[in-house]
Amino acid sequence: MSHFRIWFVVISKSKHTDMATYAVFGTGTVGQALAGRLSSLGNRVMVGTRNVADTLARKENDMYGNPPFAIWQQGHPDVQLGTYREAAALGEIIINCTTGQASVDALTSVGEADLEGKILIDIANPLDFSQGFPPSLVVCNTDSLGEQIQKAFPLLRVVKTLNTMNAWLMVNPALVPGNHTVFLSGNDSGAKETVKTILNSFGWEDRNILDLGDITTARGTEMLLPLWVRLFSALQTPMFNFHINIAGR
Amino acid sequence: MSHFRIWFVVISKSKHTDMATYAVFGTGTVGQALAGRLSSLGNRVMVGTRNVADTLARKENDMYGNPPFAIWQQGHPDVQLGTYREAAALGEIIINCTTGQASVDALTSVGEADLEGKILIDIANPLDFSQGFPPSLVVCNTDSLGEQIQKAFPLLRVVKTLNTMNAWLMVNPALVPGNHTVFLSGNDSGAKETVKTILNSFGWEDRNILDLGDITTARGTEMLLPLWVRLFSALQTPMFNFHINIAGR
Repeated sequence: MSHFRIWFVVISKSKHTDMATYAVFGTGTVGQALAGRLSSLGNRVMVGTRNVADTLARKENDMYGNPPFAIWQQGHPDVQLGTYREAAALGEIIINCTTGQASVDALTSVGEADLEGKILIDIANPLDFSQGFPPSLVVCNTDSLGEQIQKAFPLLRVVKTLNTMNAWLMVNPALVPGNHTVFLSGNDSGAKETVKTILNSFGWEDRNILDLGDITTARGTEMLLPLWVRLFSALQTPMFNFHINIAGR
Repeated sequence: MSHFRIWFVVISKSKHTDMATYAVFGTGTVGQALAGRLSSLGNRVMVGTRNVADTLARKENDMYGNPPFAIWQQGHPDVQLGTYREAAALGEIIINCTTGQASVDALTSVGEADLEGKILIDIANPLDFSQGFPPSLVVCNTDSLGEQIQKAFPLLRVVKTLNTMNAWLMVNPALVPGNHTVFLSGNDSGAKETVKTILNSFGWEDRNILDLGDITTARGTEMLLPLWVRLFSALQTPMFNFHINIAGR
């Protein structure tokens, strides 16, 4: 009986760990969470930043008390650091974990040849903290950051996802009990299927992955952020998520 | 044993049915759902409208196939119909179920003496369907309809709630299985406590009522609507709700 069990384990491992190379744009908490998780799953990862020397020189924790990239990298020696351009040249899939206001500039610094046909997983939110708390959105209502990126870079296959929750929860849904939801928005069905497989590898079950439709539906998930920040205040923890309960399902 | 049981039923009925008089502004589905439920619970209800004759003359179903007020009222003979002013003069509590763009005008047509100190339960959303689907919001991001109403009518104690779900679910949460969430926003703690009791009478358990804070948090719940309408499309049913899953609770 035991060799059947081993065979089953090998099959299920293979389903969830198709190795790939990833460019993770952004050296903050979201970038660290994504890069660390992808690397631990056996993928090759290069984190992209505007200026490598500046990133490595940073010594202060961020506003939430998370460590600077150089400290974090000591525990993740397999994760490389390069410019946005270097990371995009390496990565088959690009993950945008920059702040929303820096996203288009980051992608503009990459040559078109290194973007063409690639999936961009867009996790950024267009939050503006310049007027303090609560933040407002730089773009919303009749447009979204996801749409702006897709429009500016038509060569990319943009999939907006994971932007509605805490960074550690993105890559480890079991941190919140029970079923809860991750949304998908994008124009390319094949790209969304690939992203679902990546989400599966993080622990997201298919029944909790909800495809909203084309990239214009990113308006809805980005506009969830004003509620998210108020829930963070009211609940005094970032470790929560939205679940969609549906009658009869 | 049986008279103890009866005694228990009487106590629990009394807890949930402190009778009051309600002015329900708006003759559409949301107004019908709220007025019908409050009336069936034994409350006195007058629905308020801009023009009573116009409302009674309407013969067509709305865009969702719901009946016009005159047809609906045949099944709810205890629910009265009057002008906004007449309804507000009667109601101890006012419930705003108008379309968001009509809300301030409706309240302006009421004399200050009939608003002073009253709770206004604001269920309206500032949706603009003039450009087709998806609707946009007339106000969002750095302001909200809830705040605009509170600012225009400082005599009212505005509590924003129930605006994030289908009308029938508002008054019957059991239509969606399991735990799911209704949000509260408002500056007046006492008013929010009263509204919680009303929500309890509809079937909402305390653990599913989530107080977000002051009326500025209405930005978050109103900005949930762009996601709600896309979920309605993706799920092909309006009978769903958001639940907040929280680690360790």
